[in-house]
Amino acid sequence: MPTIALVGAGNVATHLAHAFARKGVEIRGVYSRTMASATALAESLHAASYAAAHLATPTDSLDLLADADVYILAVKDDALPHIAAAWPESKRGRVVLHTAGSVAMDVLAPAAEHYGVLYPMQTFTKTGTVDFSKITAFVEGSDAVALHALAELAQLIFGNCQPLSSADRQYLHLAAVFACNFVNHMYATAYDLLSHHGIDPSCLLPLIAETAQKVERTTPREAQTGPARRGDRNIVAKHAALLTDETDAATIYQTISDSIMRKYNA
Amino acid sequence: MPTIALVGAGNVATHLAHAFARKGVEIRGVYSRTMASATALAESLHAASYAAAHLATPTDSLDLLADADVYILAVKDDALPHIAAAWPESKRGRVVLHTAGSVAMDVLAPAAEHYGVLYPMQTFTKTGTVDFSKITAFVEGSDAVALHALAELAQLIFGNCQPLSSADRQYLHLAAVFACNFVNHMYATAYDLLSHHGIDPSCLLPLIAETAQKVERTTPREAQTGPARRGDRNIVAKHAALLTDETDAATIYQTISDSIMRKYNA
Repeated sequence: MPTIALVGAGNVATHLAHAFARKGVEIRGVYSRTMASATALAESLHAASYAAAHLATPTDSLDLLADADVYILAVKDDALPHIAAAWPESKRGRVVLHTAGSVAMDVLAPAAEHYGVLYPMQTFTKTGTVDFSKITAFVEGSDAVALHALAELAQLIFGNCQPLSSADRQYLHLAAVFACNFVNHMYATAYDLLSHHGIDPSCLLPLIAETAQKVERTTPREAQTGPARRGDRNIVAKHAALLTDETDAATIYQTISDSIMRKYNA
Repeated sequence: MPTIALVGAGNVATHLAHAFARKGVEIRGVYSRTMASATALAESLHAASYAAAHLATPTDSLDLLADADVYILAVKDDALPHIAAAWPESKRGRVVLHTAGSVAMDVLAPAAEHYGVLYPMQTFTKTGTVDFSKITAFVEGSDAVALHALAELAQLIFGNCQPLSSADRQYLHLAAVFACNFVNHMYATAYDLLSHHGIDPSCLLPLIAETAQKVERTTPREAQTGPARRGDRNIVAKHAALLTDETDAATIYQTISDSIMRKYNA
């Protein structure tokens, strides 16, 4: 079983570190630009008292980061080229992975001999546990050494593991933006609309839950309902008129309604 | 306990009829424009052998529709004025309710002395059971008789019941379009994107589930993540470039990303 060190101490790094530690993987070290963040993650691993995690050493220096078989870079997309450029010569022979959806694997080529990508298809927040056994990991490796480490690690915690090229991973990340970030913005727009009219937005929660559950039973195409799907232009016009004061919501309403009507020839 | 007859035999009528029958409410009759639909709903009530539902008589004539204390009109929005105009003189003294989000209560004024609205905040599909105990019913009544019947019926099956004017109900329906119909269109767009690139879209399901569950723990504002929320214009531009061939998805991507960046000053 390879040993790991984390570069980054945010949501993704934290959830991955704990998931691996829970499975007995030794987390050797945690790097963060700020010592406080690195220490917080290291201490949360110590506090959880996993069999092999007590060694995790925090640092704010890449050069001082503990030796490990695999380095997982879970940092902001923009930080990856800088970390690759500053990667210590002493760690060139190790496997270096990043977890970013929209960054090509080759960003790591200047840093290491064996590199790759471990992209988990999920949204991570600080609080709440993540059930990795339901998540697909999309992986890409520069060579057999990287692919072997990826396979070993991914199958430990993920429910499913699939190879995916950097080019295709961009579409995966883009799809996740629609299915998660844009969906959440629809929730936010609905919440604001109700709050402005004195209605408690939490009445939407059963509708939100059912809408998400429906696609587990059928396809989004089959599940589509509403005025635009029915081609009910009277209601669409009434709704648009209600939104004249709320510029962004009005634009979104028209754009998506038009798209639904076109998609279903409604 | 008031007796009920249903006008309409679609998803909403079917789920309401079964929910009321399960609670011992007598369903006297079912009207549909087509006899086959009325018969199908009546027979499904008979087949379920609820204590008091065996009397439900199907018909395709409003004049022949069984006598009941309360008539629930669960039909397409456009059909409501026609049903109100054709409402039998013999049933004028009964309570007549509709279930439409975007139609004012007064559409029923020509038909009956006591009328109102029973709007359940949920999306209904043919298959699957509906847990009404989690759903809020928004009600409006023309007078004390209608309000009394609404309160009696709503508290039987709904988890929560709130009064709401026709004017405000429009915003509720509009919010539901964002939180359900538009959300589902985001799912559809994400699914299409992955299918076009040979990736199984079902890998999105854990992400979809987590995104919906997150708003049960926090607000959509707190839950918002993604490139637009971070103001990461590099990624937004890369994504937009990936979508040049898919016109609607490109427009939606830009519209919603712009809206997110504006909302959070990102």
